[in-house]
Amino acid sequence: MRYLDKLLAAQRANNSWLCIGLDPQPDMLPIEAMRWDEPILPFNRRIIDATADLVCAYKPNLGFYLQWGAAGVIALERTIAAIPDHIPVILDAKIGDIGHTQAAWGRGAFDAWGVDAITVNPYVGADAVRPLVLGRPDKAVYVLARTSNPGAGAWQGNLVAGQGLSADVLRAAGEWLHSAEQTDAGHCGFVVGATYPAELAAARALAPAASFLIPGVGAQGGDLDAAVAYGPDLHAGSVINAGRSVIYASAGLDFDAAAREAAAALRDAINERRGTLP
Amino acid sequence: MRYLDKLLAAQRANNSWLCIGLDPQPDMLPIEAMRWDEPILPFNRRIIDATADLVCAYKPNLGFYLQWGAAGVIALERTIAAIPDHIPVILDAKIGDIGHTQAAWGRGAFDAWGVDAITVNPYVGADAVRPLVLGRPDKAVYVLARTSNPGAGAWQGNLVAGQGLSADVLRAAGEWLHSAEQTDAGHCGFVVGATYPAELAAARALAPAASFLIPGVGAQGGDLDAAVAYGPDLHAGSVINAGRSVIYASAGLDFDAAAREAAAALRDAINERRGTLP
Repeated sequence: MRYLDKLLAAQRANNSWLCIGLDPQPDMLPIEAMRWDEPILPFNRRIIDATADLVCAYKPNLGFYLQWGAAGVIALERTIAAIPDHIPVILDAKIGDIGHTQAAWGRGAFDAWGVDAITVNPYVGADAVRPLVLGRPDKAVYVLARTSNPGAGAWQGNLVAGQGLSADVLRAAGEWLHSAEQTDAGHCGFVVGATYPAELAAARALAPAASFLIPGVGAQGGDLDAAVAYGPDLHAGSVINAGRSVIYASAGLDFDAAAREAAAALRDAINERRGTLP
Repeated sequence: MRYLDKLLAAQRANNSWLCIGLDPQPDMLPIEAMRWDEPILPFNRRIIDATADLVCAYKPNLGFYLQWGAAGVIALERTIAAIPDHIPVILDAKIGDIGHTQAAWGRGAFDAWGVDAITVNPYVGADAVRPLVLGRPDKAVYVLARTSNPGAGAWQGNLVAGQGLSADVLRAAGEWLHSAEQTDAGHCGFVVGATYPAELAAARALAPAASFLIPGVGAQGGDLDAAVAYGPDLHAGSVINAGRSVIYASAGLDFDAAAREAAAALRDAINERRGTLP
C-alpha cells in the first residue's frame, strides 16, 4: 500500500489528524515509572494502548532513544513493533547524509524496523532524499522545510515571499516527486512548523500535493487553525504532532489515562476546526 | 582536556592527520567476515588494532550501524569502547534537531558513549549547535559547511564568493565560538569536503581557528593538496578522513593488514605534503 493511502486509511478509521510524538525523556517520565527496571518500553506501550484509536500516526524521535545508548534503541525497536500495523510510524531522525550512507539509514529504518516514513534534513541537497525513496513506493520522507524553533529563520529565508532556502526546498522536492521516472518512488512530504502560520500557508501553496507533518501545536504553542487549514494535501489530511503536552499530561502513574484525555481533547479541537474537510 | 588539545596530542603521537571512517557495509565487508556470527565488532576491532598508531581520530558513521538495527548500535558502543582512550572519536551522525532533542543526542553521544565530537547539520540554525557545546569544554561539534557530494552546491551557495548558506554558516558559527560568554563551551569545527578545493580555501579564510574535518580524499577522489594546505587551524592540524579506501582495501581476510598498508600510505602522502607544517 502506498504511504498516503495508509495514512488516509488511519485518519478515517480513527477520525483523527493527530500524531503523537513518543519521546521518552528521563527528566519528564513519571518518577514512579523511572523506578521500573527498563522504563521506556512499558511507558510507551501504555501510551500506545491508551491512544491507538485516537491517532493517525506515531512519531518516535531517535534522539530521545539514543540518549539511553543501545538499550534505548532496543526499546525503540520494540516500541515500533508495539504500534498496531495499520497506524503509520514516522521515525523522526532528521537524517541528512549522502548517497550510500543515506541508503544505509533507509535499510535500518524501513527494512530492519519497518517504519513507514522518516524525517530528512535537506542541507546536502537531493542526495539526502533520493536514496530513501527510489524503489520504495510504500514509504515516505518528510523533508525539513520550515522548522518550529525560534532560530529557524536564520538560514531558512523568507518563505512567505517565496524566497530562500525553505522555498527552494519545497519547490525542488516537488519536482523530484512529480518527475516522470520516479513513479516507483515513495512519497516526499515536508515538515512545516505550526509556530509559523503564514509560512505554513505559503508552504502549502508551493507544494499542494505533499503531505505535511506539522510539529509545534502542543508545548511549543503553535497555531492549530493554520495547521488544520493548510495541513491537508490533495489526498490526505494534516499530520499534526503533539508530544510533551500529551505523553506527559500527568506526572503520576495515571499518565496513560491522562494522555488519552489530552489526545482526545486535541483530536476533537482539530476536528472542530476541520468542519467539512475530509 | 579540551578537544583541540586531545586532537593535537594524538596528531603528534602518531605523526598523523589521518582519520579513518569505521563504516561497516554488508556489501563491502569481506565475504569470510560476513560468515561470522556478529561481524561488525570483530571487523572493527581488527581495523583499530591494525591502525591505531597511524591515525589522529576515528569516525564511525551512525547510519552504517543503525542499518543493522539495535544489534548494530550495540556493536557501535563496543567499537567506541575498543578505541584507545587517547585517540579522539568523532561520531558522524549529522544530527540537526532543536533544543531539548539535540541535548538528548548530546547525552547519548557524549555521556553514554563517551565520544569526543559529533557532526551537526545546521539547517535549523544555532539551535542545533548550542545544546551540544555549552557547558562541555572537552567536546566538539563539526558543523556541515560544504559537503563532499556532487549535489552539494544546490543550496549551499557560492562559498568562494563568500555568498550563500555555507558562507553564512562558517561566519555564524565562528561568532558562537568566540563570543565571550561561551568560554566554557566545546569547540565548533566544520565539515568541508576535499572534493571542492577552492571552497576549502575559502572556508579556511572565513574560519581560521576552527578545526576542519575533511572527507572525500579516498574513494570520492578529493584533493589531498588542498586538504593539507587549508586543513590546519591555528591550533591543530587537519583531520582528513578516508573510509572505504582504507577499511575495504582487501576483500579477503587479510583486510586488517591491507588497511594498515593503505592507512600508512595515505598518512605518508599527507605528511609529504605537510612539509614544515606542525
